[in-house]
This record gives sequence, C-alpha cells and structure tokens, in this order.
Amino acid sequence: MNAQTPVETAVTQALADFVVGSTPDSVPEAVYAEATRTFLNWLGCAVGGATHPAIDIAWAAAKPFAGAAQASILGRDIRTDALHAALINGISSHVFDFDDTHLKTIIHPAGPVASGLLALSEKMLAEGRAVSGREFLHALILGIEVECRIGNSVYPQHYDRGWHITGTAGVFGAAAAAGKLLGLDAKQMTYALGTAATQASGLREMFGTMCKPFHPGRAAQNGTFAALLAKEGFTSSVRGIEAPRGFAHVASTKFDPREIMENLGGSWEISLNTYKPFACGIVIHPSIDACVRLRNAHGLKAEDIRSIDLKVHPLVLELTGKTSPKTGLEGKFSVYHSCAAAIVHGRCGEHEYSDECVADPVIVGLRQKVKAVVQPGIHEHQVDATLTTVDGAVHHIFIEHAIGSLGRPLTDAELDAKVADLAGAVIGEARVPPMIEAARNLGKAKDVSALIASARG
Amino acid sequence: MNAQTPVETAVTQALADFVVGSTPDSVPEAVYAEATRTFLNWLGCAVGGATHPAIDIAWAAAKPFAGAAQASILGRDIRTDALHAALINGISSHVFDFDDTHLKTIIHPAGPVASGLLALSEKMLAEGRAVSGREFLHALILGIEVECRIGNSVYPQHYDRGWHITGTAGVFGAAAAAGKLLGLDAKQMTYALGTAATQASGLREMFGTMCKPFHPGRAAQNGTFAALLAKEGFTSSVRGIEAPRGFAHVASTKFDPREIMENLGGSWEISLNTYKPFACGIVIHPSIDACVRLRNAHGLKAEDIRSIDLKVHPLVLELTGKTSPKTGLEGKFSVYHSCAAAIVHGRCGEHEYSDECVADPVIVGLRQKVKAVVQPGIHEHQVDATLTTVDGAVHHIFIEHAIGSLGRPLTDAELDAKVADLAGAVIGEARVPPMIEAARNLGKAKDVSALIASARG
Repeated sequence: MNAQTPVETAVTQALADFVVGSTPDSVPEAVYAEATRTFLNWLGCAVGGATHPAIDIAWAAAKPFAGAAQASILGRDIRTDALHAALINGISSHVFDFDDTHLKTIIHPAGPVASGLLALSEKMLAEGRAVSGREFLHALILGIEVECRIGNSVYPQHYDRGWHITGTAGVFGAAAAAGKLLGLDAKQMTYALGTAATQASGLREMFGTMCKPFHPGRAAQNGTFAALLAKEGFTSSVRGIEAPRGFAHVASTKFDPREIMENLGGSWEISLNTYKPFACGIVIHPSIDACVRLRNAHGLKAEDIRSIDLKVHPLVLELTGKTSPKTGLEGKFSVYHSCAAAIVHGRCGEHEYSDECVADPVIVGLRQKVKAVVQPGIHEHQVDATLTTVDGAVHHIFIEHAIGSLGRPLTDAELDAKVADLAGAVIGEARVPPMIEAARNLGKAKDVSALIASARG
Repeated sequence: MNAQTPVETAVTQALADFVVGSTPDSVPEAVYAEATRTFLNWLGCAVGGATHPAIDIAWAAAKPFAGAAQASILGRDIRTDALHAALINGISSHVFDFDDTHLKTIIHPAGPVASGLLALSEKMLAEGRAVSGREFLHALILGIEVECRIGNSVYPQHYDRGWHITGTAGVFGAAAAAGKLLGLDAKQMTYALGTAATQASGLREMFGTMCKPFHPGRAAQNGTFAALLAKEGFTSSVRGIEAPRGFAHVASTKFDPREIMENLGGSWEISLNTYKPFACGIVIHPSIDACVRLRNAHGLKAEDIRSIDLKVHPLVLELTGKTSPKTGLEGKFSVYHSCAAAIVHGRCGEHEYSDECVADPVIVGLRQKVKAVVQPGIHEHQVDATLTTVDGAVHHIFIEHAIGSLGRPLTDAELDAKVADLAGAVIGEARVPPMIEAARNLGKAKDVSALIASARG
C-alpha cells in the first residue's frame, strides 16, 4: 500500500490479509452449519446435473486436452485433472438453475467456489496433504465471503450493465478459497485476486444457453488457476479490484468499498444464502408455493380448478410471462405452466420442467386457467392468490415469505429431500442417504475421500 | 436472424458467415505477404520470450494439470496439450511488449490468434489432418480480421474504459481462426463467437505485471476452446457481440456495427499491421528513431553529446516520462533512457532494456542531457529533435513517420534482423536462418512440421 492508496480503499490487500489471517476457530459454528447446507445443496445440484447434455458436450470438448486423473467429475465415473474437474462440476452445479442464491446480489455463490475447492482438495489428498472437512468448509466460507462482498460493492449497477455476476464475482471467490488451501501469503493472495480480476467475465446475454452454467465452471477453473499461478510467483496488480482501471471501475458504474471493508470477519455473507425448492427462477417461487399449499390444504386436482388468479410483482410477468411454453426450458419462464404443474404434481422439480411435462395436455389445459396481474405493493417474495373451484368454492392465500426465501428458509429435511430428488436420478436412490450423511458430517471428516466416493457416478 | 434483428446489426452471424464462407483464393496475395510478416514477427517474439521468468512461472503452475504432448512450447524443449501450448506461447509472444500492433486500436493482433492456431495445427497434424501453410495463413488472416473489426467497433471508448483490448478482442480472433481450421458451420461459428464473447476479459490495470502478457495467452486458449466447444454442440447466444447485454454494449459505451460490416471481405485489417523495431511502447519510437539516425549520420558517441532537445506529442511524457528508471522494465517507460541507449548502442532491443543497461553509468549520465517538451501540432508518429555536441555543432531532424509506423514500415531485412536478435538469444544464432526461412516459406508448406521443428528449444 503506498501513499496514494488510502487505507479504506485498499480493498484488494485488505481482502487478501483477511483471508490469509483467518483461522477456522474465528468463524462461529452457526456459520459452519450454513456452510454445510450450502455445500449439500451444491452437491445435489452438481450430481443431479451430471447427465445433462451440456456436460456431455463440455467433456467431449475438454477430454482430448485433459491431464492426469487427480479429481472426480461428480455423478460420473470420470477422473481428470483438477482444473477440468472444477470446470465440469461448476457447469453441472448450475445447469438446472437450481443452485444457491445470495439474494442481495443474485450471485449463486457455491458454484465457482466449491467446484474449485473440491477438485483441488482431492488432488492434494492424493499428494499426501489431506484437507480436513473443517478446513474445507472454512475455505468455502472465506471464498463466498470474498465473492459476495465484491458483488455487494458493485451491485446492482454491475449486474444491470449486463454482467453475469456469478461469473464475474465468482472468480474472486474461487481464487481466495484455493489460495487459502494452498497456503498463500498475503502478497501472493493479493496477486491471486488480481489475476482473478483480470479474468472476470460472463455476459447476461448468455442466459438460456449452455454458456450460462459455463460461467461458474470457468470461474472455478480460472480462479483456482489464479491461485496456483500466484503460488509460483506470477505477478499482478496489488489493486486489481479498486484501481481506476481495476475490476470495479471498469465493469461497474458503482463501487462502494465499504461493502467490502465494513465488519469484515464480523459478519458472514454465507449466512444470507438461500436454496431454491423449485427448479426455476426465484421470482415464480411465491406463486408456486401458493398453489402447492392450496392444493395440499384442499386436496385439489386439475379437474377441480376453474381459475387461479394471481396478484404479483412486476418482475413475474417481465421474466416469466410465457403463456405457451413449448419446451422444458421455456416452462421455467412461464408462471402459468409452473402453477399448473404445482397443482398437478404438488412440486416443481426438474421433472416438472421436462419437455414431456410442458406438453402434458392436462397441464396445458390447466395453465390457461391461470391469470396473473401486477399489483403495486406486492414484494418480490410475495403473492396474493385466489383459487376458484368448478363447484364454486373460493380459496385465498397470501404468501408473505415464499418457501426458500430468507424469511422461510428450507428446513434441513426439505433440503435433504431436494438433494435426494436431484442426486437420486443420477446415482440411484440407494446411494443418496450415504451421500447426504457424508456431506452433513463433512465438518468432522479428516479429509474429503468419503464424500467424493459417495458422489461419484 | 429474427424480425427483431435488423440485418445491419446482426454482426455476430455476419462475421460467422464471412469466416465460414471465405476461401483461401479470395484473399489477395499481398495480404498473404503481410500475414507472413505478421507471423514471422510473432514467431520471433514468442521464441525470444520463451526464457522469460513469467514463462517459467506459468509453466510451473500449469504443468501438473497439462494433458498429452500434442503441441510445442516454442523456444523450449517441451510439448504439452494444445490448449496449454496456446497459453504459454501467447504469454511469451507478448512478454517483451515487442509484438505486432494494429495502430487503429492498439491491439496486438497475432498473439491471441497465432498462438492458438499453431498449437491446434500441430495437434491436428499428429492426428492425420495436415493444415497446409496457406490454410494456416488464411485462418490467421480471418482471425485477425474478426479481432480487429470488433476492436474497431468499440474503440476507443472500450480501451479508455480500462479494457486491455488485446485480450478482449483477441479471444474472438482466436475462436474464429480455430473454428475455421475445425471446419465449423455457420451456426457453430456463431456459437463459437458467442462463447468467446462471454470470456472476453483483461484489465489495463495489469500493465507492468505478468498479467499483461497473460491476456493474449489466455485469449488464445479460451478462444480456441470456444471453437472446440462449438464443434461438439455447446450453445451460446447468436448475438454475442451486438445484443443489448452482449459484449459491445456491456464493455463499451461506443458500438459502431459499420466498423464490422463495411467492406467485409474487401479490405483486410492485417494490411494495417505494424512491427516495432524497438522493444518499448510505440510512443517513444520517433524519439529513438531520431537519435539513431543522428548518431549514424554523424558518427556520434556518448561523450560527444552536450544536449538532446525533443519536441514531442503529449503522450510521450504522460506514458514514458520516467527520469530515473531503476530497472529494465522501468527503462521502457523512460524516453530519457531510451534516447541515451539509442546513442550508445544504436538500437533499443531487449538488451537495451536490461537492468544492466539501465544502470550503465555512461547511459545514466547521458540520459540527464535529454530534455523533452510537449509541442502542439506534433503527431504521435513524429518528433522534432535537436542534438548539440560538446564542440558546438547543432544537428536537427524532423521525423515525419517513425520507423515501424505505417508510413515507414520495417523492411523485410529489418524484420529479419529483429527476429534474429530475439530468437538467436534463445535457440542460438545458427538456428535462426532456417527458422526465418521456414516462416517466410510457410505459405508454400504442406504442413507446419518444418516450421515447428525450427522453432523448438
């Protein structure tokens, strides 16, 4: 830090000092508990996404260039070099848009950080350097802290500009977490963050294509490599985040360094992490939650419904207003399909966003009975729903905090059920309980071997 | 292209169509001649940079993750997977800041494109698919065309914002060139450009650190991988460049699609490429040129000089105003050191920017006799220099077009001498002539094998 760099804005060095100096016992146990939930949710998504065509394609492209078998591709019977494992697992963890969400920034924090960490931990174990489960979770917590604080400092202008913040902020988190495992000193960690800064990328234009899940995968791979470069002595700017031509000013019109500095080490962004119960955008969650609750409370079936009238936040129609979706992917952008599927199946998992489900005549008929209008004063996490049955009964519900929001987080049992649903389809139902147990007990594990064995294909 | 996409702005698809449809014979022979010069200059830089510490460090970090021996690291006795070879050769080609310059945009065009192409060609040859020299140069020309036209469309605002345009535009060029060799169809090529768009990165904050040459290396690697992904069916936006949340609008406040569309296939940006005679920023070249010419014309030595008075463009003092450089790297940012070295050594190659040369007492004494003042009306490629000797003689020169500019390009002999100086220090002087011959005859070669054999360490 030189005379031209006021202490309060030397955020790159401050973050590096923080990550290097943090000890496992300085983090409250409640934070570890949330980190375990974050990791379990990520694991379910990564295993569940492992057979998606995007994974087949990415691996087909990468395999001819892959190195030694150091780390596992989750949900598959493949081991490859740790950087490619980070890439592939990062893609699969986001391919269903079902991973965790830091609601303040819409960052999906775990993908970039956990994908790199797990691959690096497996490689290090084979080299005789066991990363304990607690050390792993500590690095995950720190990586997510760096990622989300940088995100907070540039949000929302950075996101509004068109950057996919999970990719751009994620690469910092991956670098910080990998750097922690590698034992970087403060100078090296500063360089790792700088080398991450200069690789930050990912455009929102890619939403709806395979490039969207590519972003957290590439962030995991690139951030991990940034830390590896720094370990060997590769140099970078020491002001990669805050300099006039650094990440924040180049890629955002807002930069508030206080979001990075204030209460650093005293509050934990991972505590604000959330996990979706439904395999679609957060914005439809209140409407689905309302339909599931009314269905279950009154034992309703598709043929019972005359109409469903929703009063919603404007973003619901802006982002998910497709009235006639043709594919599973389009179904994720249709509040009408989602509510119809919620009535018929009582849930909206990946199955309810298959092409078959979207084309199901019962659901096609029912979705036409769903009406949504914008109502001022309705918050993003709220909905006002009125369901009228064919025999004239009227059922009303107001959702204050949709399931999966900070006001009504998934219970551990609900999270386990989500993970079981995702992972079971890939590794088989019988293997799910040991995998969940390995993840829930990670903080006490001596290394990551049992967990990885439980999650391979 | 849909109804919402006017023809004139669907530039991503237009560029893809252009690259896919271009045939080798549609490009004038004069363009191939310049492509050969571009390639030779790149080769000299990449071989010459191969023993720089940044290469040792990058390879130490990458090696544990590297794949099969498919492609050569130039100037070294190392073969690795083609993507890592693209990365390392891209770094070494820019590590001396001595590679080619597209003056309209300050893009260094060859690094991202040639580094990926050569590695991919070597891999393909081993698989029985020989890329001919003409095919190679054609792909190089197309890649640079895509790279520089995209650069033109967002320059200068994109660069002014803080993006290192060699990295951000370079990834498109690498994708286009690799995609051409891989035989992508138009849809795949569009996806390759989209997957390049979402990886575009590189910050000017990194100038002066190892991350600067990392940018063209990473662009080569990432663009090549974008093409490989597209070949396997990975999807992206078809409007990665021009969409509201695509590359151009997200990373620049200026986007002029005419720069991409006008006379596409009728004019060639590689024809505007230039090659530096001196191993420093373009902005000092007129001053060095003036000093070398006066020295040679009058047989001057250091002890003959009383003063050197320069009238310069403002950027000279802004970018290269260091009066007391301590290291070789700092010497590159000192017009005073550069002019002193030009008088003493008659040139400013890498040797003149060594730590030893910067500390040489004769040069330290002489640089204090150099004065530079800004004069309105002096263009970036000009200088007005007056040299006074200790015996009172006054020598004046006005440089209209500095050596290495478009108005006074390096001759073939000067380019050969530059390449020989760079490469000879790494592979030995005896091996230089065959390497230059292989590069100069590349357009007639049946494959890249002879060239690669000539340039390995």
